[in-house]
Amino acid sequence: PPTLNPTTNEPPTPPTDHRTLAQTQDLFLTSPYSPGSPLFLPNGSSIFNKLQSFLRAQYPQFGFKEVVTPTIYKKSLWELSGHWENYAKDMFEVKGRGFTGQTENAEPGQDEEFGLKPMNCPGHCLIFASKQRSYRDLPIRYADFSALHRNEISGALSGLTRVRRFHQDDAHIFCRPSQILDEIKRTLDFVGMVYDTFSLGPYKLLLSTRPEKNFIGSIADWDKAESQLKTALSASGREWSINEGDGAFYGPKIDIILRDSNGKEHQTATIQLDFQLPQRFQLSYQAPPEDLEAASTSTEDTTLEAGSARPVIIHRAILGSLERFMALLIEHYAGSYPFWLSPRQLVILSLNQDPAVLAHVEKLQAQLSGANASTLPNGLPAPLPLDRTNVIVDIDTSARSLGKKLRDAKKGGWNFIAVVGPNEVASESLKLEIAGQPESTKAQAMRVLEDALGRDVDGRK
Amino acid sequence: PPTLNPTTNEPPTPPTDHRTLAQTQDLFLTSPYSPGSPLFLPNGSSIFNKLQSFLRAQYPQFGFKEVVTPTIYKKSLWELSGHWENYAKDMFEVKGRGFTGQTENAEPGQDEEFGLKPMNCPGHCLIFASKQRSYRDLPIRYADFSALHRNEISGALSGLTRVRRFHQDDAHIFCRPSQILDEIKRTLDFVGMVYDTFSLGPYKLLLSTRPEKNFIGSIADWDKAESQLKTALSASGREWSINEGDGAFYGPKIDIILRDSNGKEHQTATIQLDFQLPQRFQLSYQAPPEDLEAASTSTEDTTLEAGSARPVIIHRAILGSLERFMALLIEHYAGSYPFWLSPRQLVILSLNQDPAVLAHVEKLQAQLSGANASTLPNGLPAPLPLDRTNVIVDIDTSARSLGKKLRDAKKGGWNFIAVVGPNEVASESLKLEIAGQPESTKAQAMRVLEDALGRDVDGRK
Ligand SMILES: [Zn+2]
Ligand SMILES: [Zn+2]
Repeated sequence: PPTLNPTTNEPPTPPTDHRTLAQTQDLFLTSPYSPGSPLFLPNGSSIFNKLQSFLRAQYPQFGFKEVVTPTIYKKSLWELSGHWENYAKDMFEVKGRGFTGQTENAEPGQDEEFGLKPMNCPGHCLIFASKQRSYRDLPIRYADFSALHRNEISGALSGLTRVRRFHQDDAHIFCRPSQILDEIKRTLDFVGMVYDTFSLGPYKLLLSTRPEKNFIGSIADWDKAESQLKTALSASGREWSINEGDGAFYGPKIDIILRDSNGKEHQTATIQLDFQLPQRFQLSYQAPPEDLEAASTSTEDTTLEAGSARPVIIHRAILGSLERFMALLIEHYAGSYPFWLSPRQLVILSLNQDPAVLAHVEKLQAQLSGANASTLPNGLPAPLPLDRTNVIVDIDTSARSLGKKLRDAKKGGWNFIAVVGPNEVASESLKLEIAGQPESTKAQAMRVLEDALGRDVDGRK
Repeated sequence: PPTLNPTTNEPPTPPTDHRTLAQTQDLFLTSPYSPGSPLFLPNGSSIFNKLQSFLRAQYPQFGFKEVVTPTIYKKSLWELSGHWENYAKDMFEVKGRGFTGQTENAEPGQDEEFGLKPMNCPGHCLIFASKQRSYRDLPIRYADFSALHRNEISGALSGLTRVRRFHQDDAHIFCRPSQILDEIKRTLDFVGMVYDTFSLGPYKLLLSTRPEKNFIGSIADWDKAESQLKTALSASGREWSINEGDGAFYGPKIDIILRDSNGKEHQTATIQLDFQLPQRFQLSYQAPPEDLEAASTSTEDTTLEAGSARPVIIHRAILGSLERFMALLIEHYAGSYPFWLSPRQLVILSLNQDPAVLAHVEKLQAQLSGANASTLPNGLPAPLPLDRTNVIVDIDTSARSLGKKLRDAKKGGWNFIAVVGPNEVASESLKLEIAGQPESTKAQAMRVLEDALGRDVDGRK
């Protein structure tokens, strides 16, 4: 992890609370009208969307397909999934017009209340179950960025860390029992890649195994699954340990425990195996003919047709709650984000109030940020391509002194500060004040700026 | 609009219903567990996300900033906004743990039920109100892709056109009364650009003006606003007409009425002025000193401080409901999407079952789709850049005859079909079967394929 005081032996300064930094940088608001549901301002939304885009960009190489699923489901679905029995007090209950709960001989789903979803799994099970699946189709991996709601008590709510509404980089892997090892290996690779990208770590991996009593599935199934998890953990090359008997009754899990630069531990990613949900939703696939999967899946599982087998579900999230992960990143970077993630990439300061200077500042902002579209023959602006490089550009053209503007810009955490005066108007350029940025960031940012500008930043064409 | 039978005088064939096409192409499901809330499958999610990305890519040039806002707000917010009085029967009501509605002397927001949001406007008003605003900050434009819920009766629900859960490309522009003309012009330009991109149209614009009675605001304010709307409409060069007196009590509006190739009319985009919500939320900005805005905004508006003025809010959506717009696009393109929007860009068919052929098919799929990341020195896969060009590639390596596979691939609406046999294994290439694609699409797609592959598709390096 980046040491905060690299040249001394002093203990690192505790990070500024994310709520304080968020206020300085206009990241989000909270409101008494929706406690625990942060309102992301443009800067916070920019980080939030970049995190989603980053994960989306990785999904093809890990075989995840994104789905978009409902926010509310009828009580009967939550009864099927077991959430109504075990989780109802943490769920918000939703009622629509015409709800009475009193329709006689009602079909499941008719005249019924809804639950606001706390998890995506039941919806993904409905999608899996919507089609006949063969062993050749597996693993099937669904990713989902839906908003989730959990009814935390209001006293516990705080910033982005204890919320009622949040988003996970959630996914469910439906796989054959024999595919667990490979899927866990890939998931641990994904975790490693993502945490390296943000220079987060070190982290340790914690395996929770079969509880003594009241577990579902056969001991043989648990043993096979746990042995695959252990193999994957050893292959990861990371520190890992076992929490014997601490698994959920429906499957073993791996928790990722991140240690921040202040020594504080955060539980972020989770990889949870699930033998139960596939049973509850009667999920199955056509087993391979040469294989005994169908018979061996579970001896107590009598509802399975001959030739069919139950998939295992792996619930996994790499960042976990995007909101909580953002809180962690805000403190980790202390408000100075890497260029690609930053909501404050560049601020252009005017040297004075000369109209030519102000006009050049605005022209540069328009060029860099993508506001200067060309016009088509029909007089309409041309659509910008989906992969256009835009720079997030703020400007300060106030009448204050350059010194004051520079000081505010530095305090505000912009990656780059540019000054425009009469010289820059004459050379059609901008003067970059680069401070406190690593060389690699500088080079990358210059490329992005020149891409967006279509020429060198210093006035050479 | 594209004529379906360009060389004859026969009337065009009515389009296939979007629900039928969606089934053929695996776009979405509906479920009795959440009536009116479509579950988008990977192919449908891909179109859905591309529509969002397309709009996001345009936002910089039109000055919109994205925000991410709550799903539920307490009843007191909906009372403030007026929705509880006028809209409650269309809203879902949400209750959490501890709700009784009986807390004595409760503060607003305490022990209260929530409403599931049917619109984003109140949330955006909270954001506007969170800071002191000056006339120099205006216009402020917030865009929001949040899921919205409206409690339609279950008998009315159908596919993507009549739903309970939907997403709008919603935005609210907070501007000075004198900025209405410019904002409406820009919005009409945005509409024109987007509809041209999808080859949709022609459309007509319909202005609804001040009702005879029970309107809010002064007649002078309405007259000024309507005259700006008329100027913008005339400048658009489109067909437009007036629905005299048909405006809402809180402001005039412009509806965009799209005529599809079958002559059917669709109301998609809306631009709605609002004099009321800024009053209800007590929104204000510091008026310019030389200006009389502060005094002239509204004579009946006595709560405004001296020197302050009320902004006008413009509610606007270009696509309207993304779900309904998708239904329209599915029928408009009859399942054959432009390459960039298509969830079925390429399918690779194996000529036979030779292991070398099958391996080459899978290698090509991995290269084109982004599944073949390079490995870093630490053994982890390298993160893919956010702007990498990926192609959506399906494969058919079944043992069926090539003729059958080709027929299914054509029926399935893939933009490009490639065949791989021993020749292609030898030349490390793929053979594209290009049928029914316009030349411009072919050229664009070849560029994308070669970008993703890092070389020519026909085996030349
Ligand atoms: Zn889950
Ligand atoms: Zn609105």
